[in-house]
Amino acid sequence: MYRPEIKVVDCTIRDGGLTNNSHFEVEVVRDVYRAACEAGVDYVELGYRNSKKMFSVDEFGAWRFCDEDMLRRATDGIDPRETKLSIMQDAHKAEADDILPKEKSVVDMIRVATYVRDVDKAIWLANNATDKGYECTINIMAISHEGSPMLDEALQQFEAETKAKAVYVVDSFGALYSETVHYLVEKYQMYIKTKEIGVHFHNNQQLAFANTIEGIIKGANFVDGTLYGLGRAAGNCPLELLLGFLKNPKFNLVPILDVIGRRIIPLRNEIEWGYMVPFMLSGILDRHPQTAMKWVEGGGPDKHDYVKFYEMISEDPEQ
Amino acid sequence: MYRPEIKVVDCTIRDGGLTNNSHFEVEVVRDVYRAACEAGVDYVELGYRNSKKMFSVDEFGAWRFCDEDMLRRATDGIDPRETKLSIMQDAHKAEADDILPKEKSVVDMIRVATYVRDVDKAIWLANNATDKGYECTINIMAISHEGSPMLDEALQQFEAETKAKAVYVVDSFGALYSETVHYLVEKYQMYIKTKEIGVHFHNNQQLAFANTIEGIIKGANFVDGTLYGLGRAAGNCPLELLLGFLKNPKFNLVPILDVIGRRIIPLRNEIEWGYMVPFMLSGILDRHPQTAMKWVEGGGPDKHDYVKFYEMISEDPEQ
Repeated sequence: MYRPEIKVVDCTIRDGGLTNNSHFEVEVVRDVYRAACEAGVDYVELGYRNSKKMFSVDEFGAWRFCDEDMLRRATDGIDPRETKLSIMQDAHKAEADDILPKEKSVVDMIRVATYVRDVDKAIWLANNATDKGYECTINIMAISHEGSPMLDEALQQFEAETKAKAVYVVDSFGALYSETVHYLVEKYQMYIKTKEIGVHFHNNQQLAFANTIEGIIKGANFVDGTLYGLGRAAGNCPLELLLGFLKNPKFNLVPILDVIGRRIIPLRNEIEWGYMVPFMLSGILDRHPQTAMKWVEGGGPDKHDYVKFYEMISEDPEQ
Repeated sequence: MYRPEIKVVDCTIRDGGLTNNSHFEVEVVRDVYRAACEAGVDYVELGYRNSKKMFSVDEFGAWRFCDEDMLRRATDGIDPRETKLSIMQDAHKAEADDILPKEKSVVDMIRVATYVRDVDKAIWLANNATDKGYECTINIMAISHEGSPMLDEALQQFEAETKAKAVYVVDSFGALYSETVHYLVEKYQMYIKTKEIGVHFHNNQQLAFANTIEGIIKGANFVDGTLYGLGRAAGNCPLELLLGFLKNPKFNLVPILDVIGRRIIPLRNEIEWGYMVPFMLSGILDRHPQTAMKWVEGGGPDKHDYVKFYEMISEDPEQ
């Protein structure tokens, strides 16, 4: 028995872009887009529309900016079926003026990623999106570092002051367990009455898929995944697991399996992601994965000296 | 707040032995044993004591048989602290006569792995173990393929006819979700009144750790893990995640991190385990991982043609 309200968002290219500064070949993006459309995924997110004033166009690839012409190159000639196109704006790194009126854009949905402290910037961008005719969500990052009363106040504001379709729990650090997922979804439900709740989890503790299920059980109806879990550090909830779990007969796993084998597996020659001890320790200690990523990318003879890494991260004054 | 009744079993060498026919160097086994003892793990399982009549001593390594002299070589000179030594017997592949009286053995616990159909063989071996002075558990394998009324009857028998300390839910195929874990632990609790319930999960769907937590939440007090998830196909619940989650101050993560880096990571040069699409599909379809293992080990140009694998396994008459 399935819940037709559940909407699956594939954010392989957007979140995966944090592993490679959003440098994906257009053909890879096209194949991911096509597979998501054929699989019946509800939304496919092809990148950020962040500000070129804040990100260097030399350093970052096209999918950090998602100009309309690039999005058309990624999607032209592909039948979207029921799949909608999403992009993300970071509340503190994006501009309202970069968003065209909906009728001039191929984009259907804009997701605004924000920290609780940037609540008013997020509302500004969310209202800019909905006023211009887009669907919108608000994704509260680093949720494991947020507590009452600031989070409660932000939730009240998002409920009262925006027309977002959903407000997300985003476990940026892969630190949540099922009980904390339950707690947070229930807290959101105290304030979010006219919108859906979304969940987006990272896999530091191999809990991204499990926590997504727990979110669904508690009533979250927007759920994120990426192909083969592609994403920064330990990565994300694998989309293929999510589709395997959901019972909606509209989903078709075959195009997803195909594109993983052809397009995602080869990326492993350039990008290292997935469960590793340093990312696990970041998750357990509820830290940003940056230190662990540097450790892993640095390689060297100490790469697997996990005790040394543990001592270093435990003493990190940024705790 | 921790539950002191929870007992952690490291079965790295025993379950990991299914990846390499139990061929581990003695020094690796010693280091795993030492780390488990230093970490405060309650039990460490160093292999099977299966029958040399049913397993070739040429093909299988020492840890498939766990002769007493080998166990002594693995443990001599190492302070066990509070850690007890476990071995496993397969109900249909082991013999009661291979078990010495406890006072002549270094073993503390014998775990009997069984299918429901072998309930009476399992009881025979379990009673042999407890009669000879050992602790004992009964581990019901392939639980996702077992239903009422046979499972209920087996549970009644294990409760009434054995002195086992625990009866385990063993998700051999990595097919369970949190709701099925809850269902099974509750079913066990209907019958198992004088013993603990144990949980042992496989990671085909990246749910081994998550399901272990769910088992704990429901009251299971015997929980299994392996270092870095070492185990057949997608592997097991990673012990390091489990210790990171449990709050009992007696646990020390440091020796575990150390031995993973020094002894387990290098095994990846010979053994491939962990989350992969073919194992994921086995889990979703609730199949034995054997077909997927052959596919992965076979390598070749089709290795990542997951659509082909999916079609093959979907048509498998062994469904």
